[in-house]
Amino acid sequence: MRLSRYFLPVLKETPAEAQIASHRLMLRAGMIKQASAGIYSWLPLGFRVLKNIERIVHEEQQAAGHIPMLMPTLQPADLWKESGRYDAYGPEMLRIRDRQDRDMLYGPTNEEMITDIFRSHVSSYRDLPLTLYHVQWKFRDEMRPRFGVMRGREFYMKDGYNFDVDRDAALHAYNRHMVSYLKTYERMGLQAIPMRADSGPIGGDDTHEFLVLADTGESEVFYDAAITELKFGDRVVDYDDVDACRAIVDEWTAPYARTDETHDAAKFDAVPEDRRRTSRGIEVGQIFYFGTKYSDAMGATVTNKDGEVVPVHMGSHGIGVSRLVGAIIEASHDDNGIIWPEGVTPFHCGIVNLRQGDTDCDAACALIEGSLIAKGLDPLYDDRDERAGAKFATMDLIGLPWRITVGPRGLKNGLVELTSRRTGESEEMTVEAAIDRVGQIYPRG
Amino acid sequence: MRLSRYFLPVLKETPAEAQIASHRLMLRAGMIKQASAGIYSWLPLGFRVLKNIERIVHEEQQAAGHIPMLMPTLQPADLWKESGRYDAYGPEMLRIRDRQDRDMLYGPTNEEMITDIFRSHVSSYRDLPLTLYHVQWKFRDEMRPRFGVMRGREFYMKDGYNFDVDRDAALHAYNRHMVSYLKTYERMGLQAIPMRADSGPIGGDDTHEFLVLADTGESEVFYDAAITELKFGDRVVDYDDVDACRAIVDEWTAPYARTDETHDAAKFDAVPEDRRRTSRGIEVGQIFYFGTKYSDAMGATVTNKDGEVVPVHMGSHGIGVSRLVGAIIEASHDDNGIIWPEGVTPFHCGIVNLRQGDTDCDAACALIEGSLIAKGLDPLYDDRDERAGAKFATMDLIGLPWRITVGPRGLKNGLVELTSRRTGESEEMTVEAAIDRVGQIYPRG
Repeated sequence: MRLSRYFLPVLKETPAEAQIASHRLMLRAGMIKQASAGIYSWLPLGFRVLKNIERIVHEEQQAAGHIPMLMPTLQPADLWKESGRYDAYGPEMLRIRDRQDRDMLYGPTNEEMITDIFRSHVSSYRDLPLTLYHVQWKFRDEMRPRFGVMRGREFYMKDGYNFDVDRDAALHAYNRHMVSYLKTYERMGLQAIPMRADSGPIGGDDTHEFLVLADTGESEVFYDAAITELKFGDRVVDYDDVDACRAIVDEWTAPYARTDETHDAAKFDAVPEDRRRTSRGIEVGQIFYFGTKYSDAMGATVTNKDGEVVPVHMGSHGIGVSRLVGAIIEASHDDNGIIWPEGVTPFHCGIVNLRQGDTDCDAACALIEGSLIAKGLDPLYDDRDERAGAKFATMDLIGLPWRITVGPRGLKNGLVELTSRRTGESEEMTVEAAIDRVGQIYPRG
Repeated sequence: MRLSRYFLPVLKETPAEAQIASHRLMLRAGMIKQASAGIYSWLPLGFRVLKNIERIVHEEQQAAGHIPMLMPTLQPADLWKESGRYDAYGPEMLRIRDRQDRDMLYGPTNEEMITDIFRSHVSSYRDLPLTLYHVQWKFRDEMRPRFGVMRGREFYMKDGYNFDVDRDAALHAYNRHMVSYLKTYERMGLQAIPMRADSGPIGGDDTHEFLVLADTGESEVFYDAAITELKFGDRVVDYDDVDACRAIVDEWTAPYARTDETHDAAKFDAVPEDRRRTSRGIEVGQIFYFGTKYSDAMGATVTNKDGEVVPVHMGSHGIGVSRLVGAIIEASHDDNGIIWPEGVTPFHCGIVNLRQGDTDCDAACALIEGSLIAKGLDPLYDDRDERAGAKFATMDLIGLPWRITVGPRGLKNGLVELTSRRTGESEEMTVEAAIDRVGQIYPRG
């Protein structure tokens, strides 16, 4: 993409209404624009990051054998009356009446709707295990929306639902979700720590939240430093292997890690003192096993191997896709702007032309741009007629992890500069070497 | 994907409520489930087709230089009061009041919101031309929703908006959209004929609808058969080339083609009698040039080359993404089920194992499945322990364009059968030949 043809409305001033770094930086970098309180338009740069996060979520969910579908944003109130949650949910549920005077709502979550789909179509254990998920816009009418997309009203979320014949099978689904979530967050450059949590309005027995450590987090967290040493890395997981999934869950749940809601001071004191940590965390996902809560209320049953009709065991599992954009920025920025992890960056590499209009510089930039595109990458080429300082400031603000700088002086010796946004370190190399290096950084293209 | 692990709830009975083929077939093939009147869940098979259509739309819009973003589903009423449409729109607009008693609405279209974004960030002709688009869920509170996703209430739509410094530049944007739409529909296996139309509530001077010929279409259409001979084919278009775009538009708008709304009997009579056609059509898109209607009302101006402040010239351009799923089926089905065009098919090829559990058949099917996946294709392998007849009926119903059938008799001689869903013709060939042939049918993988 050439910046001269793109829509990247960066702001010079820091918007007064933004209290935290991610909100400030998303506004300044031209990623979002507020439409009304807690509701945002995703401008082109923000949309790219949102889509990258969604893509990683889809890939990892499907790798775990979960099946994508899509439920609508508006739901009939009747379904929620069946589960008893229509009255229980409170004013955060946006209630709507349509022109036929039917009670509707903008879905904040989908347990009722997916249970209705299940009971309409599935009646035998032979069709289990089954996990269906979708990524859809949801609404929660927050009293005081704030912190930009971190606590918005209209938000984008992946929510998945497992259906299993009994508790053991459902607990495997729970573990499978935890494993896939660990991998998902790591691909986004995040360390998200699973912490035992309260179940809240979803209900349920077992639940873990995934928290990203950041000073601006809404929760106080207590953990054993050992958990921050764990890496998912390149492990290949067979998601059908019950023991393998449980072993990974055991590894991540053995060290103490809890939020203030479930904190147990006595257990925390048992952690060696030099490893005890207190911090703040941003919740970016949560998994639940809640057994037959919805299947009992809504009559979702299957026939088991013995021919008995039993309620299906369920869980639900969420990843806050739009919230993650903010959470990643909270965890990865500096005074000059955002620092995108390679996994989610809106463009793989910036190209800065220090002398726009100079034949050699223009040709070298075009060559770099074309070569990166040929490798399946998306570069952002700043081809505007602007001062070098302004171009660097924009690149630093929008936070592309790598930048190739092309200037007349270096180019006389055939050299350009490759700069890491994270370390600030620059290295001179030939045009070809810079292209190769960027290609190696993003091997999957 | 193995069918034993998928969620494909096909129905044996024809649902009584469905009046047209696409609605019937989408329910029977397990593509959708009604959530409430005119609101559907997209079950896994339907979701795949929806996403394929969305992907083609994105690719062709970006090829034309248009920039993707995403606006929210809920909009503040204030914006619509500025344009005067809040009162004008009528009961099809779903009006909502949030917990702070603010007037909101579920957006049926986005002219106001995009104009607000534009006026907040752009003030110079140097930032033009600019076309922004999104694909988002919209709502239209139809009095009598019917025909499944063809006339739903919650629907998925691509809407794009061009901003140009003057009428000429905006008319090029109009032409660019027409060209990109012709290519988009053709990639979906559709012939969508541009017909001069009325502008309706969007307003405007120039507008064309794109209509797919089908008996169940809502509009009566009159056209010169010559227009059905035109093919976009493999043309490479330079979307910056004003003359090239206009030439394509001229080619497609020269033959007479109008809906009943704009039909001109005298002009139609001038078409040679043997080429005069009357039929019905389904609208799958519409483009508008409306000049300064919204920019005047909302104060969206730019400074032009002469330093004058002028209102920006705009148009808006829509493709009905969810409606297209139904329209494609209306145009392409038979008594046994759907016949997907290769461009949008949910799976590239079906694999039917005639003797599940037979070592050789199972191995051959697994080899075919693995080889197609290695080519970047998505096969659907029916590995259920079912009668051949049931497997064929399911494959015919869900309409995958190609099917490889593996049975013990053929396999003795190393042969399998490749069948075209469209023609019904089968051809015996080796396993390797069948894999190669399917790979050649989908060269882009």
